[in-house]
Amino acid sequence: MDLQRLIDRIQPLDPDALRAAREHQDKLTKPRGSLGLLEDVSVQLAGLAGRTPPPAPSPAAVAVFVGDHGVHAQGVTPWPQEVTAQMVANFLAGGAVVNAIAGQVGAQVVVVDVGMATPTTGLNGLVDRKVRPGTADMTLGPAMTRDEVEQAIEVGANVAYELIDAGHRCLLTGDMGVANTTASAALVAGLTAASPAEVTGHGAGIDTGTYVRKVAVIRHALELHRPNPADPIGALAAVGGLEHAALVGFLLAAAGARIPVLLDGVIACSAALVAHALAPNVRGALVAGHVSVEPGAARALDALQLEPLLRMRMRLGEGSGAALALPVLQAAVAVLAQVATFDGAGVTDKH
Amino acid sequence: MDLQRLIDRIQPLDPDALRAAREHQDKLTKPRGSLGLLEDVSVQLAGLAGRTPPPAPSPAAVAVFVGDHGVHAQGVTPWPQEVTAQMVANFLAGGAVVNAIAGQVGAQVVVVDVGMATPTTGLNGLVDRKVRPGTADMTLGPAMTRDEVEQAIEVGANVAYELIDAGHRCLLTGDMGVANTTASAALVAGLTAASPAEVTGHGAGIDTGTYVRKVAVIRHALELHRPNPADPIGALAAVGGLEHAALVGFLLAAAGARIPVLLDGVIACSAALVAHALAPNVRGALVAGHVSVEPGAARALDALQLEPLLRMRMRLGEGSGAALALPVLQAAVAVLAQVATFDGAGVTDKH
Repeated sequence: MDLQRLIDRIQPLDPDALRAAREHQDKLTKPRGSLGLLEDVSVQLAGLAGRTPPPAPSPAAVAVFVGDHGVHAQGVTPWPQEVTAQMVANFLAGGAVVNAIAGQVGAQVVVVDVGMATPTTGLNGLVDRKVRPGTADMTLGPAMTRDEVEQAIEVGANVAYELIDAGHRCLLTGDMGVANTTASAALVAGLTAASPAEVTGHGAGIDTGTYVRKVAVIRHALELHRPNPADPIGALAAVGGLEHAALVGFLLAAAGARIPVLLDGVIACSAALVAHALAPNVRGALVAGHVSVEPGAARALDALQLEPLLRMRMRLGEGSGAALALPVLQAAVAVLAQVATFDGAGVTDKH
Repeated sequence: MDLQRLIDRIQPLDPDALRAAREHQDKLTKPRGSLGLLEDVSVQLAGLAGRTPPPAPSPAAVAVFVGDHGVHAQGVTPWPQEVTAQMVANFLAGGAVVNAIAGQVGAQVVVVDVGMATPTTGLNGLVDRKVRPGTADMTLGPAMTRDEVEQAIEVGANVAYELIDAGHRCLLTGDMGVANTTASAALVAGLTAASPAEVTGHGAGIDTGTYVRKVAVIRHALELHRPNPADPIGALAAVGGLEHAALVGFLLAAAGARIPVLLDGVIACSAALVAHALAPNVRGALVAGHVSVEPGAARALDALQLEPLLRMRMRLGEGSGAALALPVLQAAVAVLAQVATFDGAGVTDKH
């Protein structure tokens, strides 16, 4: 795959559709601006689609990209690495949180191995696109080669294209990989002016000793690699994860196809920073489903100037927050498409 | 109707079901607490239902209670009073925002006239339970009599019972009435320690001159009536609206029947303050759908210690924010009911 072609396909939002959508919002039978963020995302989706109203963001699919992390050896989490594969089995059996929420909101779940450390044997239904069995330990050297990053980006882009070809009109990010909040924090710190402590959180639940070690591990990795925001592929190779790289491709491909993507938590937000560094116009396709408790998520969303739909103290990942936000995004479009105008309904406008 | 019987039916949340739900949440295949507010509301609904998992909060219905306000004469809003009836026609034709969102999330909409100033002639589908044609001007005397307040409470309670009898398992508050944010702000200030300026907002969009007048009108009404938090019926009679009183009955009846209610914006939140003053245990049935931009909403939710599901800069009313939050509440219950446990799924817990 040619990364540059993936980037070049991404165009700005359509200014005429943006203007038409904002003007139409102002004619609907409600005080102007009274739906806040709901109006803003409907206008964004009109700009993305190039028409007002935009098509409904459905059907929708969550792609859960799975990768393991060499930095797990540094003791950054109390969860054993085999939990990655165990949770993949749970996803495939329909027993995880993302399955319950996606089922409730009518989204399909696909699970893609882009870098699980263990074999995929016996995991029926898993999409096997493994680039390598987990990253290397970022504290000892680069997590991946640049070539592996580009392969994982291609995996993510192809998954996006396949879902769009199958008729999906909204894509949701999902992720699984024990220790992946460490890679996410390193990416956010590496691509923004944030310090490791500012963007490091308690992940899936760690004690103070582990937290201090996690910050030190991230600081050490950043000092070792000195990721350069002008070289996002290099940053990904140095401190990222295979699922992060796949998500970058997923976002770029969706944006190029002008299909909206709901971002989940800190893994998706850190990947969005990388995608944005490669192609600033990718932002037009992105809607932040929620803001995770993980501090790197808010930092990344600030940098991307994305306002999250939900703020519910969630920090699970898997795509759970993106799936929970899907009905909100669908309602935003339904309002723009269906509500009567002042003239049409015979309602008097304010003085 | 005997108000005291309505109050006496409301019992505390079931402590055994609350404990069982929290314990079950902690066994699900996710880090403990990682779903934040989503876990909390699922536990609340288990306590309300008295069993874990609680029944799904569906089917759901939004009751839009309609009333007009005598204080409109004081120039507190740029919208003419006839907009109340025009918007009722819009609701009945399916053209308003609440129709679009409720349709998207699968909730029924019922529109109940409890105090529209104009006749209901020609408004097919409107549930006519008019207590009086609009309130009196609170700056000149009480908005209603105590007897009218109790009649409107009965209207709201009966609507709740009818919806529950028809099979609904989640009720959503809706409201329409030009100038009703003025009554709401007066209620919030009257029932909390807040000053009029702290709880007065820009409603459906007012200029600075109107805003200053609105604050002065509310201050004058509060000085005239000195509402006593220990006499919530008196406070409603003095500065409330007919739709506020109906909402009080709606909340009390639902709580007595142990059916959850999603609150919309400042009108619902101010009514919830009244209901809570009458029956503190009503709180167990209430879930704040969102927090409105109207400052009285946040103040009331703080006083009620309710954390809103959504924070999206909305300020429309009609039930729009409650309807938008319905899928979130449904997802919370789906997670508790459907997700696999660590033991069941063979997933290793953290060290």
